[in-house]
Amino acid sequence: MLEEIESLRLVDHHCHGVLVRELDREGLEGKLTETSSLGPLGGSLFDTRIGFAVRRWCAPVLDLEPHASPDDYAARRADLGATEVSRRFLSGAGLSDLCVDTGFTPEPLLEPAELGNLAGARGHQVVRLEDLAEKVVAEGVGVSAFAHEIRARLDTCAGDAVGFKSIAAYRAGLHLSGERPSASEIRAAAERLHREGERALAGGSGLPRVSDETMHRFLVWCAADYGLPIQFHVGYGDSDVDMHKADPLLLTPLLRELEPTGTPVMLLHNYPYHRHAGYLAQVFQNVFVDVSLATHNVAHRAPVLLAELLELAPFGKVLYASDAYALPELYYLGALFFRRGLAHVLDEGIHDGAWTQADASRIAGLIASGNARRAYELGVPI
Amino acid sequence: MLEEIESLRLVDHHCHGVLVRELDREGLEGKLTETSSLGPLGGSLFDTRIGFAVRRWCAPVLDLEPHASPDDYAARRADLGATEVSRRFLSGAGLSDLCVDTGFTPEPLLEPAELGNLAGARGHQVVRLEDLAEKVVAEGVGVSAFAHEIRARLDTCAGDAVGFKSIAAYRAGLHLSGERPSASEIRAAAERLHREGERALAGGSGLPRVSDETMHRFLVWCAADYGLPIQFHVGYGDSDVDMHKADPLLLTPLLRELEPTGTPVMLLHNYPYHRHAGYLAQVFQNVFVDVSLATHNVAHRAPVLLAELLELAPFGKVLYASDAYALPELYYLGALFFRRGLAHVLDEGIHDGAWTQADASRIAGLIASGNARRAYELGVPI
Amino acid sequence: MLEEIESLRLVDHHCHGVLVRELDREGLEGKLTETSSLGPLGGSLFDTRIGFAVRRWCAPVLDLEPHASPDDYAARRADLGATEVSRRFLSGAGLSDLCVDTGFTPEPLLEPAELGNLAGARGHQVVRLEDLAEKVVAEGVGVSAFAHEIRARLDTCAGDAVGFKSIAAYRAGLHLSGERPSASEIRAAAERLHREGERALAGGSGLPRVSDETMHRFLVWCAADYGLPIQFHVGYGDSDVDMHKADPLLLTPLLRELEPTGTPVMLLHNYPYHRHAGYLAQVFQNVFVDVSLATHNVAHRAPVLLAELLELAPFGKVLYASDAYALPELYYLGALFFRRGLAHVLDEGIHDGAWTQADASRIAGLIASGNARRAYELGVPI
Repeated sequence: MLEEIESLRLVDHHCHGVLVRELDREGLEGKLTETSSLGPLGGSLFDTRIGFAVRRWCAPVLDLEPHASPDDYAARRADLGATEVSRRFLSGAGLSDLCVDTGFTPEPLLEPAELGNLAGARGHQVVRLEDLAEKVVAEGVGVSAFAHEIRARLDTCAGDAVGFKSIAAYRAGLHLSGERPSASEIRAAAERLHREGERALAGGSGLPRVSDETMHRFLVWCAADYGLPIQFHVGYGDSDVDMHKADPLLLTPLLRELEPTGTPVMLLHNYPYHRHAGYLAQVFQNVFVDVSLATHNVAHRAPVLLAELLELAPFGKVLYASDAYALPELYYLGALFFRRGLAHVLDEGIHDGAWTQADASRIAGLIASGNARRAYELGVPI
Repeated sequence: MLEEIESLRLVDHHCHGVLVRELDREGLEGKLTETSSLGPLGGSLFDTRIGFAVRRWCAPVLDLEPHASPDDYAARRADLGATEVSRRFLSGAGLSDLCVDTGFTPEPLLEPAELGNLAGARGHQVVRLEDLAEKVVAEGVGVSAFAHEIRARLDTCAGDAVGFKSIAAYRAGLHLSGERPSASEIRAAAERLHREGERALAGGSGLPRVSDETMHRFLVWCAADYGLPIQFHVGYGDSDVDMHKADPLLLTPLLRELEPTGTPVMLLHNYPYHRHAGYLAQVFQNVFVDVSLATHNVAHRAPVLLAELLELAPFGKVLYASDAYALPELYYLGALFFRRGLAHVLDEGIHDGAWTQADASRIAGLIASGNARRAYELGVPI
Repeated sequence: MLEEIESLRLVDHHCHGVLVRELDREGLEGKLTETSSLGPLGGSLFDTRIGFAVRRWCAPVLDLEPHASPDDYAARRADLGATEVSRRFLSGAGLSDLCVDTGFTPEPLLEPAELGNLAGARGHQVVRLEDLAEKVVAEGVGVSAFAHEIRARLDTCAGDAVGFKSIAAYRAGLHLSGERPSASEIRAAAERLHREGERALAGGSGLPRVSDETMHRFLVWCAADYGLPIQFHVGYGDSDVDMHKADPLLLTPLLRELEPTGTPVMLLHNYPYHRHAGYLAQVFQNVFVDVSLATHNVAHRAPVLLAELLELAPFGKVLYASDAYALPELYYLGALFFRRGLAHVLDEGIHDGAWTQADASRIAGLIASGNARRAYELGVPI
């Protein structure tokens, strides 16, 4: 199936922007994984599955031999310059659409439209809910106007964006209640956020941080009123996440309440809880799942993760995403290992007689783009 | 080993009854997995591993070609009629004994004896503890007589039944204390259940719902006095279960207290926590495990689950079960994929030189029926 | 890679001592796994992956045919005598260094130097923190002198030992706070421990048991002042552990605080949470991981565990350990299955083109001994 799947253009339903600045070897290593360095005792970040994958698969895209040394790779990258490097990897990823989370910008990144241009694809925006709320407070909107202002901004966003995203996993954790919060609960949560905003302002950090169970839940329920997909960070992330609070099963009470609204819920990443996510995708009509971020980090092990996800997850509920951030290599490797992983799983089924070649082709189309196109109402690309 | 294992008759130590009514395609899809539908965005439930398995393996049993379309399959099924379909799949499963949980009957199902007749096997009864308690309350037995009445009914049941079952995982969760509750704790729990019974009656729903940690534990300890195996639902189920509260490790304190009684504890399903279950089967003398329900849902991935379960689980502690419910196909597919999975694991060991062919044959016999026969004291079938 | 890896001498960075007494078949079975018996219903402990591995791989070391029967194996073992059996298996393990946890001695065991002699390797000591605190209390050191005395003993230990170990997982669980406890918190914890010490003395059991979150944390922070690696029991153990409280992710808050100190943290065993541990090894600079204990218990499945660990764990952060205890066979099998597992993972990468043969050789050296040598500052063996 690999050749066939290589010909399919993918919808990358969750990614971030690409860095615009140039990177040296240290800078490159610092963006490869979810840590910036392994410290004095841990060795090089090139001695990881993703590090070897860069040397094996990305080097040829920059006209180097496979398995080029990290230093040669970094030098060639610098020679070509950030724009050319981004163009090569993004155009090589074979995408039709990118859904870009624009709410995490610790330094300048390419915007969705620029990403789309480099990729020869359409760039769409996903609005990060907590980011929106933090900005509302930082801009001085008072407690009594808070809920109204959030809804007004979501109204505006909903016209342009294809979806929303919650990072509750990084803050309060995913153990959210199911109920839509009451007006008084929302007001109390807004008051807490404003007090934090005042402290943040006094402390010079500027932005308050949403990390309140009620506030996360309020934002999710507001978003649910638009019917656009709501993405949740789940599982694997950097050292800021308490990963045991990011098990997707903790969302069960909320998923139970959201199901009747029909709003699609997109569980992102999920590793190492991807079997849990597969279960949720089976039993809740509106749950969709991926293994983004892990796919390129585990590299040649991607077939194992996809196979585990697809134990219970219906084939109509699984999406592709890279969760690429900063390095254009990650858009390329995410797509490459996803294609190889999916081909492996489908070929194995053909070989075992589990399904026919025709069914395998149909499923490949669903997972590569059809499911995302349906859930995000993306329409057919030109 | 596959040919040899295909010749072994299995003890299915946990299943439910088969529907007596006819099913159209929608009805069939609604019983394939742990959800009734994937909704407007999720596609067909035939686009799942179990869906493809029905088309591949069940179609020929109904005289269709492998990989028949879902519509053709549903049509042929309707032509043959429910009884003939049930007869073909149950007799094709190659069973010697079925231990049938008779406590979940949202609509009419075949009784154990009827199932046994269709399967050419012996049908045994397993009594669901919470169901028994709920009926006692609904029948108007008062608080002061409650505990006595439970024991009296268990006395009666214990003569006919081969085991008991707890669905604490679906209600309070598996985080049960270890201790046998005191008389005053039992009385307080009975009072809570009676109050709920009165509310249920007033609300028109008839039956109260046991969902109280003390009540679950009381029922388990009563059952333990009979020495018959006690089954626990663990892990994978429908969307009513909070699966993170159904991790078998949560039972550790109770298992520690039950071990000295010698009462066998049967951990059912376990997916995705089957490695946790395997560990418990190693360290607690009275714990037995299976990967039922998941086996047919993951279909051709069954060898992976069995291999993971058998990492730590001693070969004398692993059982076969289907957890089939409603569709006769599930008894057939559970047995089929279990046999293929077990053959795969044992063949791999022979190939690696891990064990001899003779040892593999001996282990196959234990897992196919010997362990269940020993734990349930089933004796040898005619 | 197997031949090459068989030529590498391993650092076993976590093991215990070997029994000095002779064992009959029952005694042998009782030390094979994490349980002493499977009881009347569970069959023989030789019917486990580890049991078959002893028959397959250990029998030839004792001049028997592969797959010798358990009785023949036990008889031959008795003929040779404990010392000769220990010599054969320890010298056959191919070790350069053993780091021996000397804090668990329910009966006489060989000391690190004696183990080293039999193995033709260097034996190092690892000091168990809770054991040290329990002895301080049992020896009558008062509450006001407690903290000072702990530090004085650690000062002494730190000269001889290569590391420390915490068994918090077996007592309070791994859900420890991150902060270094204050003087008043330490005093309160010491008071609780002394009260328990008095009760233990009165009850005739002699030693108090550290099982207090603050006390575990105090000991860890004291140890961290020496910069020597601190080992944590994680995951798989005997039935005394509440394994769901031994998930390494529960250590996240403490790891976050320990990272800036640079003290290496060694997560031991980790099964079935080894993917969680691999994640921690990626995102925290000072975290190192292994799959000890599980490696020989799962035997021929060791490649699967290592591959899962190495999904996210950087190759510079993974160590070898046996966690062998009591039976010399376990040092031998731990090393044997680790070598086979590592060879399998590296060969697969070469076959997939993920890395070159030269890189594979370099990684093998890191994981076999280089990473441990660096973290424990072991220097190069003679």
